Amino acid sequence: MNILVLPACLLAVVATGLATPGDPPAKVPPPLASWRDTDAKKAVLEFVAKVSDEDSAVFVPPAERIAVFDNDGTLWPENPMPFQLAFALDELKRRLPDEPAWKDDPAVTAALEGNLPALLADHYKGLFRIIELTGSGLTTVEFADRVRAWLATAKHPRFDRPYDQLAYLPMLELLAYLRAHDFKTFLVSGGGADFMRVFSERVYGVPPEQVVGSNTRVVYDLREDGPVLVKTMNDLFIDDKAGKPAGIHQFIGRRPIACFGNSDGDRQMLEYTTIDNPHPSLGLIVHHTDAEREFAYDKDAKSSGKLVTSLADAPERGWILVDMRNDWAEVFAP
Amino acid sequence: MNILVLPACLLAVVATGLATPGDPPAKVPPPLASWRDTDAKKAVLEFVAKVSDEDSAVFVPPAERIAVFDNDGTLWPENPMPFQLAFALDELKRRLPDEPAWKDDPAVTAALEGNLPALLADHYKGLFRIIELTGSGLTTVEFADRVRAWLATAKHPRFDRPYDQLAYLPMLELLAYLRAHDFKTFLVSGGGADFMRVFSERVYGVPPEQVVGSNTRVVYDLREDGPVLVKTMNDLFIDDKAGKPAGIHQFIGRRPIACFGNSDGDRQMLEYTTIDNPHPSLGLIVHHTDAEREFAYDKDAKSSGKLVTSLADAPERGWILVDMRNDWAEVFAP
Repeated sequence: MNILVLPACLLAVVATGLATPGDPPAKVPPPLASWRDTDAKKAVLEFVAKVSDEDSAVFVPPAERIAVFDNDGTLWPENPMPFQLAFALDELKRRLPDEPAWKDDPAVTAALEGNLPALLADHYKGLFRIIELTGSGLTTVEFADRVRAWLATAKHPRFDRPYDQLAYLPMLELLAYLRAHDFKTFLVSGGGADFMRVFSERVYGVPPEQVVGSNTRVVYDLREDGPVLVKTMNDLFIDDKAGKPAGIHQFIGRRPIACFGNSDGDRQMLEYTTIDNPHPSLGLIVHHTDAEREFAYDKDAKSSGKLVTSLADAPERGWILVDMRNDWAEVFAP
Repeated sequence: MNILVLPACLLAVVATGLATPGDPPAKVPPPLASWRDTDAKKAVLEFVAKVSDEDSAVFVPPAERIAVFDNDGTLWPENPMPFQLAFALDELKRRLPDEPAWKDDPAVTAALEGNLPALLADHYKGLFRIIELTGSGLTTVEFADRVRAWLATAKHPRFDRPYDQLAYLPMLELLAYLRAHDFKTFLVSGGGADFMRVFSERVYGVPPEQVVGSNTRVVYDLREDGPVLVKTMNDLFIDDKAGKPAGIHQFIGRRPIACFGNSDGDRQMLEYTTIDNPHPSLGLIVHHTDAEREFAYDKDAKSSGKLVTSLADAPERGWILVDMRNDWAEVFAP
């Protein structure tokens, strides 16, 4: 519904949320409240204003307002390791007593030793082996239940909070701000789709059908107790680097006009969003500069999140760099 | 926004569309106007009413109201052949003069002879070869342009209309009716996602990101004139039969509560939607019984749309059978 055709009595409702006509107008919090008033915030506000103003020469119809967000390092931390890897390692340890054969697997040895470089070597071969051991053969419902159980009990080693309470507050505000301006917000992440969908709606307000992630085929079976989908490792799709624009096409089928990332794994989707896009577009990189409140890394990232080429290309491409330490007044919700 | 908290002055707007407060209340057309008042229509209306009534014991929150629609034979005809096959054959003929090597290909010979059984034999091997020849190597933008050009010129041999003007009117009404009750409508079809996305929003009101179809990987490339995605035949996923629930999980990530199909290719997604679903659910099969206005076929379908097992299972599963001849007052828009 176009706001211009709303009856006057409704304008206050739109402006103040769910107030009824009798209420005095509520105070609307300023957008992006946890962002400091720096150039990064200004650039975001200006972009959203110009594409959502019908009188603007660069107005973008709501249906085309697609925004894509990387997850690890962009919406929540990826240190000391991506949270999904922490889940897989915890699952491995939990199930190990019942799976004696696992002990002879070199990936398991590396995992139990906490040897992250060994797990990530050879195109993440060890990591995928751990993911296979802890996920393959489960039904999608069983897998989701395990993720849910882990989120309910595990805590981040440094912040001592459940992992799903570590979303960056400024980014949650940004997601909500874009949606309030009729953007459709998607996750486009190297993380597993089946992993992220367990919490994406609750934590980010992003429904499962707007989650694009790494994935494999599932196999349908009609069992005695109903239909199930069984996880396999077939046709593994890694939604990272050049896989990100491919995943965006496969799952969304249109070019985004706004893209948010933090590493070289996001470079290709930043390009796909911002280079020669017929619509105006926004590319933004969260630069981890805040060792005190979060972490500080870029070229020397230890597990994931290496940021070199995206950083080098940013000035020429017009991508906005968010300096976490200076641009964010808060990092996490209190 | 919950309709119960709307100011009174807005209720008329919601009821009548975009009328402004000064207008007299417009006459709202009855829902599913092209459906006759038979059991099929009643079942649909009752299902939608009970899941969208907040006071109902079986109320389903809007976010969970996922409806999936097969395309060929469910939303538009699939005779004398699926429309995408007609497109591929027309493309083959159009490009043949410039591609002399194609003439030696047995699939091309079968296609030029109109030998449909040969093309569909051996798990559609010939058909996929034609799809490869006419699509692989193109960018996604080039491919969409070709589909668009074809839709603008080609006409259906029997109905003498552009193919995209052959959507079933009762099904268009059903799509709109479900969306008016906060259902999110998806295509889940054996057709190619890249083919259907060209017209899905315009013809069905289904945006590209809600189209689940057969697909292959695309390869990202940053060229001189901007980023492109090149079509390949890698990792072919056929969104049919057991592939449909798998595709639903991969792309949507939740179980639908309403499923609409017309053939044995839809049986597994009907099962996945309706068997042991924690929510109430609806399964519906369009039975082609109308040789006069459209086509009549089920077990003897010639190209696609064979209907045997889904029909046999329908009574036990509680799936609604739509008898096209008796249940639909109109088939196509005038």
